[in-house]
Amino acid sequence: MKLAVFGYGYWGPNLVRNFTAIGQTIKYVVDSDQSQLNKAQKAYPSVTTTLDADIAINDLEVDAILIALPVRFHYDIAKKALLAGKHVMVEKPMTVTGAEADELIEIATKQNLILMPDHTFLYTSAVRKIKALIDSGEMGDLLYFDSIRVNLGLFQHDVNVLWDLAPHDISILSYLFNEKPISVSATGKSHRDSNIENIAYLTMHYKSDFIAHASASWISPVKLRTVLIGGTKKMIVYDDLEPTEKVKVYDSGFEINEIEEQNKYKVDYRVGDIYIPKLEMTEAIAGMANDFIKAIESGGEHTPVSDMHLGALVVKTLEAADKSLKENGTEVKLN
Amino acid sequence: MKLAVFGYGYWGPNLVRNFTAIGQTIKYVVDSDQSQLNKAQKAYPSVTTTLDADIAINDLEVDAILIALPVRFHYDIAKKALLAGKHVMVEKPMTVTGAEADELIEIATKQNLILMPDHTFLYTSAVRKIKALIDSGEMGDLLYFDSIRVNLGLFQHDVNVLWDLAPHDISILSYLFNEKPISVSATGKSHRDSNIENIAYLTMHYKSDFIAHASASWISPVKLRTVLIGGTKKMIVYDDLEPTEKVKVYDSGFEINEIEEQNKYKVDYRVGDIYIPKLEMTEAIAGMANDFIKAIESGGEHTPVSDMHLGALVVKTLEAADKSLKENGTEVKLN
Amino acid sequence: MKLAVFGYGYWGPNLVRNFTAIGQTIKYVVDSDQSQLNKAQKAYPSVTTTLDADIAINDLEVDAILIALPVRFHYDIAKKALLAGKHVMVEKPMTVTGAEADELIEIATKQNLILMPDHTFLYTSAVRKIKALIDSGEMGDLLYFDSIRVNLGLFQHDVNVLWDLAPHDISILSYLFNEKPISVSATGKSHRDSNIENIAYLTMHYKSDFIAHASASWISPVKLRTVLIGGTKKMIVYDDLEPTEKVKVYDSGFEINEIEEQNKYKVDYRVGDIYIPKLEMTEAIAGMANDFIKAIESGGEHTPVSDMHLGALVVKTLEAADKSLKENGTEVKLN
Amino acid sequence: MKLAVFGYGYWGPNLVRNFTAIGQTIKYVVDSDQSQLNKAQKAYPSVTTTLDADIAINDLEVDAILIALPVRFHYDIAKKALLAGKHVMVEKPMTVTGAEADELIEIATKQNLILMPDHTFLYTSAVRKIKALIDSGEMGDLLYFDSIRVNLGLFQHDVNVLWDLAPHDISILSYLFNEKPISVSATGKSHRDSNIENIAYLTMHYKSDFIAHASASWISPVKLRTVLIGGTKKMIVYDDLEPTEKVKVYDSGFEINEIEEQNKYKVDYRVGDIYIPKLEMTEAIAGMANDFIKAIESGGEHTPVSDMHLGALVVKTLEAADKSLKENGTEVKLN
Repeated sequence: MKLAVFGYGYWGPNLVRNFTAIGQTIKYVVDSDQSQLNKAQKAYPSVTTTLDADIAINDLEVDAILIALPVRFHYDIAKKALLAGKHVMVEKPMTVTGAEADELIEIATKQNLILMPDHTFLYTSAVRKIKALIDSGEMGDLLYFDSIRVNLGLFQHDVNVLWDLAPHDISILSYLFNEKPISVSATGKSHRDSNIENIAYLTMHYKSDFIAHASASWISPVKLRTVLIGGTKKMIVYDDLEPTEKVKVYDSGFEINEIEEQNKYKVDYRVGDIYIPKLEMTEAIAGMANDFIKAIESGGEHTPVSDMHLGALVVKTLEAADKSLKENGTEVKLN
Repeated sequence: MKLAVFGYGYWGPNLVRNFTAIGQTIKYVVDSDQSQLNKAQKAYPSVTTTLDADIAINDLEVDAILIALPVRFHYDIAKKALLAGKHVMVEKPMTVTGAEADELIEIATKQNLILMPDHTFLYTSAVRKIKALIDSGEMGDLLYFDSIRVNLGLFQHDVNVLWDLAPHDISILSYLFNEKPISVSATGKSHRDSNIENIAYLTMHYKSDFIAHASASWISPVKLRTVLIGGTKKMIVYDDLEPTEKVKVYDSGFEINEIEEQNKYKVDYRVGDIYIPKLEMTEAIAGMANDFIKAIESGGEHTPVSDMHLGALVVKTLEAADKSLKENGTEVKLN
Repeated sequence: MKLAVFGYGYWGPNLVRNFTAIGQTIKYVVDSDQSQLNKAQKAYPSVTTTLDADIAINDLEVDAILIALPVRFHYDIAKKALLAGKHVMVEKPMTVTGAEADELIEIATKQNLILMPDHTFLYTSAVRKIKALIDSGEMGDLLYFDSIRVNLGLFQHDVNVLWDLAPHDISILSYLFNEKPISVSATGKSHRDSNIENIAYLTMHYKSDFIAHASASWISPVKLRTVLIGGTKKMIVYDDLEPTEKVKVYDSGFEINEIEEQNKYKVDYRVGDIYIPKLEMTEAIAGMANDFIKAIESGGEHTPVSDMHLGALVVKTLEAADKSLKENGTEVKLN
Repeated sequence: MKLAVFGYGYWGPNLVRNFTAIGQTIKYVVDSDQSQLNKAQKAYPSVTTTLDADIAINDLEVDAILIALPVRFHYDIAKKALLAGKHVMVEKPMTVTGAEADELIEIATKQNLILMPDHTFLYTSAVRKIKALIDSGEMGDLLYFDSIRVNLGLFQHDVNVLWDLAPHDISILSYLFNEKPISVSATGKSHRDSNIENIAYLTMHYKSDFIAHASASWISPVKLRTVLIGGTKKMIVYDDLEPTEKVKVYDSGFEINEIEEQNKYKVDYRVGDIYIPKLEMTEAIAGMANDFIKAIESGGEHTPVSDMHLGALVVKTLEAADKSLKENGTEVKLN
């Protein structure tokens, strides 16, 4: 398969390296910065580098476009590429608005093309292990998802801290849990003159009694990447900063027994063994790359794990969160 | 000074022990459960135990009443005691409603009596150390307070998890930071038939760009008691479960420099040394007991650290949080 | 059963409390310090306190003597008590020399009396769990036992740091592992004018290829209590300072395959899941007390876990270690 | 300067990369395995690769030889290179025997050439920080150095675990502390048919009351890299696995006061603040490379931190440790 990579900044080189490693051909690297193109040329002499996006998009030999540009360019380039008959993989978040995401999905569906956002975390062995634990029924019914992603920096110029860090949580959650959120509440604060929040909190509400929450900050003295996931039978602590013991499964729980008289209840706690499964040593980007190629080759039969509808949900959730943020937490419905 | 302790369940014995240790006389222990009174009698043979609250309240020899009863009894007993001319110390939260708190404060003020809620955490050496660091100016201006208090159990029957765990955060925050919150947003969920949330999130909004957030849960597989406090110059991680290294001071920060052209900014990060101050080995309850006695003896000249207005603020904040919880996060103003 | 407790300093009160709790009668508390006796009298009014050891030893009603005196008094009092027909429980280490231990064992055996050293650690749920894991065969063959016990203080006046901290390791090891050491090497240093080592290292050699090592220090800035135990199939990290996750079982190992040519070998590593068993919440001293009473009541049929031969082995190992210490590590045989 | 790198296995590529980065020219890469040479050629097209050591050694243009071969080849190649007038940098441990090390030093000295072992750890910012703390006098007099280096694998074929892991400790210690050890004791065990210990313990004795100990193992379920360093005024915990908080300085200590009567003493403990200095973000290999070049350019005026005498001491200490190991701990003198 012949691919064109758009954007050779932070993430682009990873895409080139991983797609090359699984035997695909990178025909073009496109960037608006000639010095980045020079780097690409030096590392991969056989690649054609160009400042002109249209050359790659209009080349009939190119099967798919990989977009690693800032989020504000995603929609335009993806739309052009889809309309030119190319499959598209686009960095997360997929677009700036839910309407844009919906439009891209519509085009891709009509054209029978693969459109895939790159939620790389879904391909990590930790998240896959948690998915397997939940799907096996071992966890019981899910009760909550509670995430903390904080560190010092990196402030971004055009999106707030939720757009930077919460896509991980929203995509992982969508992958793990079938039910979709019906509304969100978000609060946060900007500590600079611009109006871009650098610390924020997001609650996702569901029709069932499941609840999800994400804390995100660029102004924490320590880096934390911890998610608590509670089920009626077992609970998980997922600490992504642990070098090997990322997923700890607690055989702990509680049971609520209503007591007849007075309509009271009694809660029985259970604290049992802890189990830390060994995780596969796999590179998540390679898994993502393979999934994209597999989806293309299957002619759409195979739906990638990081699927376009999941990508759209991430964008719509963040869009709603922004609205709630401006109203200091008012619930905003998702449709 | 002669004291009467109301309630000899979980906390009452600590009060008897600590007030005795600082040389005060416990004349009465009052409880509605005779078996608890028997325990008190056995441990302290010289104390008079009684099921009848009025005996203690009406005894002219009694100077002060210490109330360690469930929160729904606080207002009635405290009011009676104040009207009978007794000083009152009452467990946190002080009352069930802000109106009740205001009324007790009004009576105490008129009668020139000490009314003090027992926010014991304010007397811990960790919180006192943090207070000193802030007051010294070393931290710069405060930016945020971000707390996590989660564990498995203990579900309570009449109050939700915010009323159980967040009083620590609200009282500590009021002690550390002069500005008062103007509104709150809260979200949460109950995982039992009753409507009492067992997992909840509280954001406190301020007129300045300070923000406070508290996560509280009774259904976490692990116990966490961690607070991040950020200032413009330094930041703190306060982990109350650390046996000795509870307070870590990070000489880390960031500076935002506006760049003329395009109204853009540049953020510079600073990561420096970490400092873990040695904390005094003091029992917080003893400090609280001394502060109460000192306030009484000073004839009201000395305002206790755990002051009645702070106690009222805690109750009003929780009351507003409850309202916001029922509306899935809508901002509720504090007056 | 009627008991006399000798020594009411640090450990004596624990003995009185625990033996009382399991329904035994403490008839005497003996101490050379009247103020300690006064404390005992106040806490346990029905006990007879005395400065005169002979009164308790010669009282025909007394069934057993519990010795919580400094180690230099153990032998004399235990011998007297055994000769007077009393069962004896004695704090660890049992005696100052191996010869004394052997003599006490001989007398106890002749008199058909129980002599039991108090190696309390053997009754903790952590050590019992490890014992069960080893006995089940799950660990495979044991390869090594590697312990670190360090902290700041408490310097002792008459015994070195190995006599203070290593009895835990030697007794636990004797309990877990059937083979006895054949020799020891020890090194260490004293940082005061006296010749009492405050930092020391002990290696225990075995006929098989098992090896044991213990690091002990009174001059470490941090407190550590960690033991690594390696088997051919599984390995354990036992961290006694962990509040709940004391025992971690690693399904890790290695296999050595000889390769024909050149007499070389190939080592295959295996890193698998980790499992943290829930431990029972039991007080070790209560288990020890019950075991002692059970041994007495069985007329010697029941051998206590903390058995006198194990106690003698601890003393002889330390005696040999002292000899090796003075020669900077020379191997000293145990007979 | 023109260099030849001998050995392009695990470490060789790091040398090529780092010496290239500081502006030196790698003229040759020498290896006995053509496939390794092919890798070098591909990565660095301008380098001459060869199977023939003599070509590089006899090339008059070559200023220095960097030896990254297995330890058994160090002496021969280094001697040849020195005799051919080349400066030499050799991986640690420098040689197999102390006599070989002495001979190389003698030749280098006569020829006025730089001979430098590569003890890279000495160039880490953590070790440099500790050195600065000690040299400033802040730590007081050093009392002990206590190191643990354990992990699962990698078993080596020709040297035991002390030769693999203890060079770090011995070299760091020599760098930090001026006094030289006078003797060693070592114990350990081999768990395979060969006689190569895979778990071992080393004590280093000094004329003063300083003591050093190192635990090394290839069969631990967990990886640990922790060193405790005690001074009379302050103590350090150096944990090399900590991503940022590698060096913790404890303002803790103890003071021994002799009491006149009875020749007894009293120990006073002091537990104070903890301080975690920020460490520079520097690559240690680059520091080492610069130090080697600087020593050459200075014509021998500048002695590198990782100096040849220190390298010889490491070898001699390990040689003595091997002898002690075979005698189960007997003290072996260093001359």
